[in-house]
Amino acid sequence: MRTSEEYRQDLYKLKPNVYVRGKKVRRDSPEVSGGINVISKTFDLVEHPDYKDLLTTKSHISGKRINRFTHINQSAEDLLKKQLMTRKLCRLVGGCIQRCMGCDAINGLSVATFAADTEHGTDYHKRFLEYVKEFQERDLVAACAQTDVKGDRSKRPHQQDDPDMYVRVVERRSDGIVVRGAKNCITMAAVADEIIVVPTRAMTPEDKDYSVAFAVPADTEGVKIVARTSKLRAPEGLKMPQGEIGDDENMIIFDDVFVPWDRVFLCGENKYATLAAHLFALFHRHSYTGCKPATTDMIMGFGALIAEYNGVYEKHNIREKLVELAATAELVFAAGVAAAHYGQKSPAGTFIPNEVYANVGRRHAGLNYYKELEILAELSGGLPAALPFAEDFLSEEVGPYIRKYIKRRADVPAEHVYRCLFGISNILCSSLGGVQAVAGVHGGGSPVMEEIAIWRSYDFEKKKDIAKYLSGISEELPRD
Amino acid sequence: MRTSEEYRQDLYKLKPNVYVRGKKVRRDSPEVSGGINVISKTFDLVEHPDYKDLLTTKSHISGKRINRFTHINQSAEDLLKKQLMTRKLCRLVGGCIQRCMGCDAINGLSVATFAADTEHGTDYHKRFLEYVKEFQERDLVAACAQTDVKGDRSKRPHQQDDPDMYVRVVERRSDGIVVRGAKNCITMAAVADEIIVVPTRAMTPEDKDYSVAFAVPADTEGVKIVARTSKLRAPEGLKMPQGEIGDDENMIIFDDVFVPWDRVFLCGENKYATLAAHLFALFHRHSYTGCKPATTDMIMGFGALIAEYNGVYEKHNIREKLVELAATAELVFAAGVAAAHYGQKSPAGTFIPNEVYANVGRRHAGLNYYKELEILAELSGGLPAALPFAEDFLSEEVGPYIRKYIKRRADVPAEHVYRCLFGISNILCSSLGGVQAVAGVHGGGSPVMEEIAIWRSYDFEKKKDIAKYLSGISEELPRD
Amino acid sequence: MRTSEEYRQDLYKLKPNVYVRGKKVRRDSPEVSGGINVISKTFDLVEHPDYKDLLTTKSHISGKRINRFTHINQSAEDLLKKQLMTRKLCRLVGGCIQRCMGCDAINGLSVATFAADTEHGTDYHKRFLEYVKEFQERDLVAACAQTDVKGDRSKRPHQQDDPDMYVRVVERRSDGIVVRGAKNCITMAAVADEIIVVPTRAMTPEDKDYSVAFAVPADTEGVKIVARTSKLRAPEGLKMPQGEIGDDENMIIFDDVFVPWDRVFLCGENKYATLAAHLFALFHRHSYTGCKPATTDMIMGFGALIAEYNGVYEKHNIREKLVELAATAELVFAAGVAAAHYGQKSPAGTFIPNEVYANVGRRHAGLNYYKELEILAELSGGLPAALPFAEDFLSEEVGPYIRKYIKRRADVPAEHVYRCLFGISNILCSSLGGVQAVAGVHGGGSPVMEEIAIWRSYDFEKKKDIAKYLSGISEELPRD
Amino acid sequence: MRTSEEYRQDLYKLKPNVYVRGKKVRRDSPEVSGGINVISKTFDLVEHPDYKDLLTTKSHISGKRINRFTHINQSAEDLLKKQLMTRKLCRLVGGCIQRCMGCDAINGLSVATFAADTEHGTDYHKRFLEYVKEFQERDLVAACAQTDVKGDRSKRPHQQDDPDMYVRVVERRSDGIVVRGAKNCITMAAVADEIIVVPTRAMTPEDKDYSVAFAVPADTEGVKIVARTSKLRAPEGLKMPQGEIGDDENMIIFDDVFVPWDRVFLCGENKYATLAAHLFALFHRHSYTGCKPATTDMIMGFGALIAEYNGVYEKHNIREKLVELAATAELVFAAGVAAAHYGQKSPAGTFIPNEVYANVGRRHAGLNYYKELEILAELSGGLPAALPFAEDFLSEEVGPYIRKYIKRRADVPAEHVYRCLFGISNILCSSLGGVQAVAGVHGGGSPVMEEIAIWRSYDFEKKKDIAKYLSGISEELPRD
Repeated sequence: MRTSEEYRQDLYKLKPNVYVRGKKVRRDSPEVSGGINVISKTFDLVEHPDYKDLLTTKSHISGKRINRFTHINQSAEDLLKKQLMTRKLCRLVGGCIQRCMGCDAINGLSVATFAADTEHGTDYHKRFLEYVKEFQERDLVAACAQTDVKGDRSKRPHQQDDPDMYVRVVERRSDGIVVRGAKNCITMAAVADEIIVVPTRAMTPEDKDYSVAFAVPADTEGVKIVARTSKLRAPEGLKMPQGEIGDDENMIIFDDVFVPWDRVFLCGENKYATLAAHLFALFHRHSYTGCKPATTDMIMGFGALIAEYNGVYEKHNIREKLVELAATAELVFAAGVAAAHYGQKSPAGTFIPNEVYANVGRRHAGLNYYKELEILAELSGGLPAALPFAEDFLSEEVGPYIRKYIKRRADVPAEHVYRCLFGISNILCSSLGGVQAVAGVHGGGSPVMEEIAIWRSYDFEKKKDIAKYLSGISEELPRD
Repeated sequence: MRTSEEYRQDLYKLKPNVYVRGKKVRRDSPEVSGGINVISKTFDLVEHPDYKDLLTTKSHISGKRINRFTHINQSAEDLLKKQLMTRKLCRLVGGCIQRCMGCDAINGLSVATFAADTEHGTDYHKRFLEYVKEFQERDLVAACAQTDVKGDRSKRPHQQDDPDMYVRVVERRSDGIVVRGAKNCITMAAVADEIIVVPTRAMTPEDKDYSVAFAVPADTEGVKIVARTSKLRAPEGLKMPQGEIGDDENMIIFDDVFVPWDRVFLCGENKYATLAAHLFALFHRHSYTGCKPATTDMIMGFGALIAEYNGVYEKHNIREKLVELAATAELVFAAGVAAAHYGQKSPAGTFIPNEVYANVGRRHAGLNYYKELEILAELSGGLPAALPFAEDFLSEEVGPYIRKYIKRRADVPAEHVYRCLFGISNILCSSLGGVQAVAGVHGGGSPVMEEIAIWRSYDFEKKKDIAKYLSGISEELPRD
Repeated sequence: MRTSEEYRQDLYKLKPNVYVRGKKVRRDSPEVSGGINVISKTFDLVEHPDYKDLLTTKSHISGKRINRFTHINQSAEDLLKKQLMTRKLCRLVGGCIQRCMGCDAINGLSVATFAADTEHGTDYHKRFLEYVKEFQERDLVAACAQTDVKGDRSKRPHQQDDPDMYVRVVERRSDGIVVRGAKNCITMAAVADEIIVVPTRAMTPEDKDYSVAFAVPADTEGVKIVARTSKLRAPEGLKMPQGEIGDDENMIIFDDVFVPWDRVFLCGENKYATLAAHLFALFHRHSYTGCKPATTDMIMGFGALIAEYNGVYEKHNIREKLVELAATAELVFAAGVAAAHYGQKSPAGTFIPNEVYANVGRRHAGLNYYKELEILAELSGGLPAALPFAEDFLSEEVGPYIRKYIKRRADVPAEHVYRCLFGISNILCSSLGGVQAVAGVHGGGSPVMEEIAIWRSYDFEKKKDIAKYLSGISEELPRD
Repeated sequence: MRTSEEYRQDLYKLKPNVYVRGKKVRRDSPEVSGGINVISKTFDLVEHPDYKDLLTTKSHISGKRINRFTHINQSAEDLLKKQLMTRKLCRLVGGCIQRCMGCDAINGLSVATFAADTEHGTDYHKRFLEYVKEFQERDLVAACAQTDVKGDRSKRPHQQDDPDMYVRVVERRSDGIVVRGAKNCITMAAVADEIIVVPTRAMTPEDKDYSVAFAVPADTEGVKIVARTSKLRAPEGLKMPQGEIGDDENMIIFDDVFVPWDRVFLCGENKYATLAAHLFALFHRHSYTGCKPATTDMIMGFGALIAEYNGVYEKHNIREKLVELAATAELVFAAGVAAAHYGQKSPAGTFIPNEVYANVGRRHAGLNYYKELEILAELSGGLPAALPFAEDFLSEEVGPYIRKYIKRRADVPAEHVYRCLFGISNILCSSLGGVQAVAGVHGGGSPVMEEIAIWRSYDFEKKKDIAKYLSGISEELPRD
């Protein structure tokens, strides 16, 4: 397993192909350091006694100890540990731990490649396992590039005026394929070693050129990463872990990129491209049952702390808001637990979370993110929107006044009040705070996507049977 | 194990002490037959291949096969099976299966009696196990009488003007105790063999006389059961299982009732009376994670069926409503699964569900019941409120018109449409439908009670640690 | 103007054509007396000093003083008075005052007939004014029969397999027309003097036979009224106004009914049939901005009263619930005020409420009815579902116990507590309570119907202009 | 009336006392130009034909034509025009027009000074009218400084450990008073000519020193304004009005500031200090019934536009979201209309909005702001969080790719899509967007403050009468 320093050094060696604010930047630019700081946590804590058991496991391929973010889940227990690991790490970065994407991608592909081979006699799964072996040994960090730019939303990939609106194979060669297109809304691609590409939607037989999955190093020729970066703030003199956090949301352009066959995992098998799209989403939604409760943990932590500082922690209207947050966090988490409990082992050996539970959990999280921000705003009052800048808080001229007037209870230092409000302001009134909210709705599939997934997988016919039985339309006991 | 016929015959032998509409009635009165029909399901299906494994288990006391409703849970698996059994049985009666109350009572008391003995050196647990042994062998049905009438809500039991506002010990004798008071909102007491009494709230040392738990046969001298009965409808000629369902909600008056010592399980130990109150509620809330999803199953079944009959089942606005119902059902159920998964074995050997998960689950159900009725009303349109009576539907004079005009799709018989709407009308526009809604909010503790339980058991301090860490107030990694 | 006694006597003279529970009943049957009691309020209070100014006005046709329920609104002030009258009367009957239907029908037709004549040169408006003149002089009560049975919901009237699924003209004669079909969900038709028929949806040129509006006496040959009646309860010895309230929801069958030309108001003019459908709905939704706040007034009254009796009226969680109810009532009412303020006078002289405001008001009411019931259930606790029957409350044997144990604060008599809970039980746990809830969602058009109306009438293009201006897509100031 | 250029020049003459990011800045600093741009709109449009009638009126003092933002409302019509003016101007700045604060302050003080004089024989009202006369003639812009820093929230002003936690009189001199303390969350103070100070809460007789209201020029000796400034973005080459918008939220420190008597409007009259606090809030909440619908207009405009660009504008799930936004906007607006309609003229001649309606309107807005952001996020998808920076969009290297891949429908230029998403990103994912959200909840009083106002002003006793009447507890017709 790598150290975070090794991860950084590996990143710095990549050829510059990241674009920020009109400039091509290297991976050691401060523009992308926030994301690197986040990912680093997944390396730094592998030996920490509280995290070790969660953050590492034994590879079912090599038998070696590996980082869990490179693991293919083999059991319900694996899913439960991944969920808990995600929750605990996300708390430390005040949001998304970002590394789950690659993990969820390899889990989804482990099943889809096996299934494709079973029908088509291809050997994707073998190639894929070789890739995973390397992935585990080199302890790689991968972005999963799923969301295509999509063009006209009312048309399928092959129906678009511009055929490049979904990533597609433009050339098949003896040594590999050439792909073109773009993916957007891809988190952390600017700080990843690898980019794993999976399809974004169900593919029909006419969409075969779009039925492609593969992996490339992040700096592969022809790959351009346009990053929308943002960071939380923490000025000089007020060191705070929250201030080290950052994020990059990327448009990845594939400008006729060559991919050798050993890194191509699907190519034309539309049915299994559909399955791969579906399974990445499923594993990723299960990951959300870990990360979203962590975000809620953080929100309720700040909300409870400012209520304590304000001297109103025991009030009934505070209690009901904090309990509302706790209930949201734990219902989402419980859905992940049930998804593991009612999950099943696929023919490939991978343990797949139950679809209904993973989706009701992710959906509940997505439906509540803005509600949680609203609760935090209610708990904190208006000050996060009007908090003097830290330079003023620390200045000689007005600093003493601010410290005098921000004070509440005698036993709480002014700086603690200020830090707490500053942290809340980062959540409620910052660019990255807004990005996290939008991601809270859409990341891993927005509520309407989960609605569709539930609609397809839930057995409503059995529910109709209950109505038929009770009203005497049918005399049979309902099957369910 | 008894048959339902044996259960009925045993009930019929009880001395009449049930009062309905100003009259004392026998247990074979049609007034209470609806509840008896419900309970009978728990006997009738013990050998049914689909229900056998859920509905029966092995007693950890006698080693014999027993009805699961008389079982003390010994493992997470037991809790999961109880939850699933509850869900499946409730579907068959279109609502509450009613027998869980006694089961939850004995589970709570199994822990509280053991704990009381540990501190006080009493022998409640031994007596209690003897009672359970009989309970299992005779396959008894018990109401759990918890909710006291409470008088002035701003005063504790011992502070009330009238000291009888909570059930209390008025006399301690060598052979037993004499109790006085009343419990209300007690479901199915009119059709139970036994009444198990547990306290309704935390008791202080001043409330020792009120710190009492015991069991009595339902027709014990001095016990008066005033029943608010209701039934769903199903007129002659339109047989439907829903029409056989009924309910009795009771005020139970204890008019100086004598209880022999071997049926007294707590008497003065206020701390363990508090625990017993708490644990019955906890087990009962876990039961709700089974029964409430069943109610939602039924509601979504009727909603889906009428949408199908109306020819709009595939419409987006139907889909979003049905998925909303499915999500509610499965989040509540998932909370129960997590409560079992994260539960723990008590010193008494009883396996206790996790408090946070049982409560967030029950709370979510309680917060959504009326919302579910609203969805059903939206799906069904106004006809459940305006449906011609069945006598008109079947009449010679206007029946043919009604059948002509109620028809929708050619392939669905008018009678099926009528039955479906009739079933919905029973849910939305009947006295018992309303009772079920109120019980959906308050049964087992209303959302505000779960809010209090979560507030007490959830570790918000650990959440504050996260905020302190992220904002730099503390440098320690958060404990959680 | 009539007295309520005259209204009753006029009703009793009608030929029996009302069917309840398989029997044809006369209008003096107890089955329909509840509805008659409701309507009677609109006659009884015309001279009451608090109601006189609201309940009567001057006819713009005859100049005579008339009951406002027979008035064609001429100004914003008229609409505001109608709204307030509706709110005040509905409070007295604990729900729908029922008589607004006919009033809204004549208002809608006053505009549609005038418009039809303008295009087609017909003389519907003149006939119609003659009818209204009689309507005002005889102080008539009319049901408005709008909702057709509709058959297959995915087909238009003329596309149905059975052509009778919408009321239609089957024969045009020199002296009138013959109509066939059925309307359902028609409130109070069993206690109305007249039935006014308007179309239920937009009509295309192919639907000309269905583009018909007319009025007939309720006992016209061929008219059959199948009533789903219900009443609130109030047993002997506990007189309460709530107990006199009842409702009938009807399927009205038109079995080849002859209508003379002077009572035909549209016949084939599909565009104006569409307008008539639309305008009845618009006026009726404005009426809902009066009646729904009244229902909420009643719910908050009972909620506040039981909280007071329970001694918790000042608690924060009570306050927030009551304020929530007040806010719902007043937002709906305010929408009605704005609908009047921004309404406009039609060419016919009738003052039409603003469509957007009438619809957002009705929609808000419809979206909140079940929420209001939920709040009432939370405020009242479980007892409304478990309240002993009045016969037990008054019985010699168990009455004294019930009165002892239902008591709360010393200064509130047990009977007041019981009456208050009984009233709540009537709202939450009765057949009619359920009917009112379904009507609260669907009456006058369900929220989805208001959604469609808002979608059609709201100028979203002007809103897009704002976005275009702010983002620099267009340099013009937004028009709105 | 001034021009915006005159307003700017007047501002630039003020002595520098604004602090931003640790530096004292002049009013012509770019740091505060965003706010100045906003306020300028209120000057620039006074002669615009679409705005003239709204933005100007006749002074009831001088009879001269004045800017409506300096007017004391004399009639319901005045309130309706102020409401509409606010809505229309806010649309042009994509949020708060900011100048209403001073206007609401003088309206509240016009009533409180008159009332204080009536009881105390003081001459505050005369002084105040002189001040208003100057205010109107010089066409001044004032911040209203209400919210004190408050210290320990569980203590009243006079109970605080540090007596300066609420602004107070520290010295009374023959020529005026000296005040000390600080106000926070004060919008636009950095770009105001004047600061008007009113109390923030009910004052008791012990709080007399805190019962003070006055006005000072913004650069008065001892006044320090610490600004939390933010701006929306619009980079070079993509001019957009949204990019000129900014905001400053301020802590205003009163470091022993002298105020001459002719600018002191209350000093020690705690009852009228309470009234002034209350009335400023009331007028300000009425202003919110204009500005919040404008924010919703903008949100629905962007939501509708991106849906159109995405080609899904006609989909049902888009429709329901846009209608939800329209309903929120119009319910809030309707509440303002009703507040004007049911308002009343005070003895001072000022027309006061109805308290219940102003509060239910403001409350509804506050409860829905985050919900509106959520809807916008749902409508726009994830791109606002991942949108490439404008410098990349315009760059030679990656710009062409971005323009190719952001394209949707053939008839919509890529730049329009980008601008629309950029505008949404400014709302959802920017610091100022977050500030507006927090202000959307708390500005003018958060929902819990409106809850309290409604609780105090709504007549729940009359609602209890309805319940008493219906349930027969009282035989009297309910008064209401």
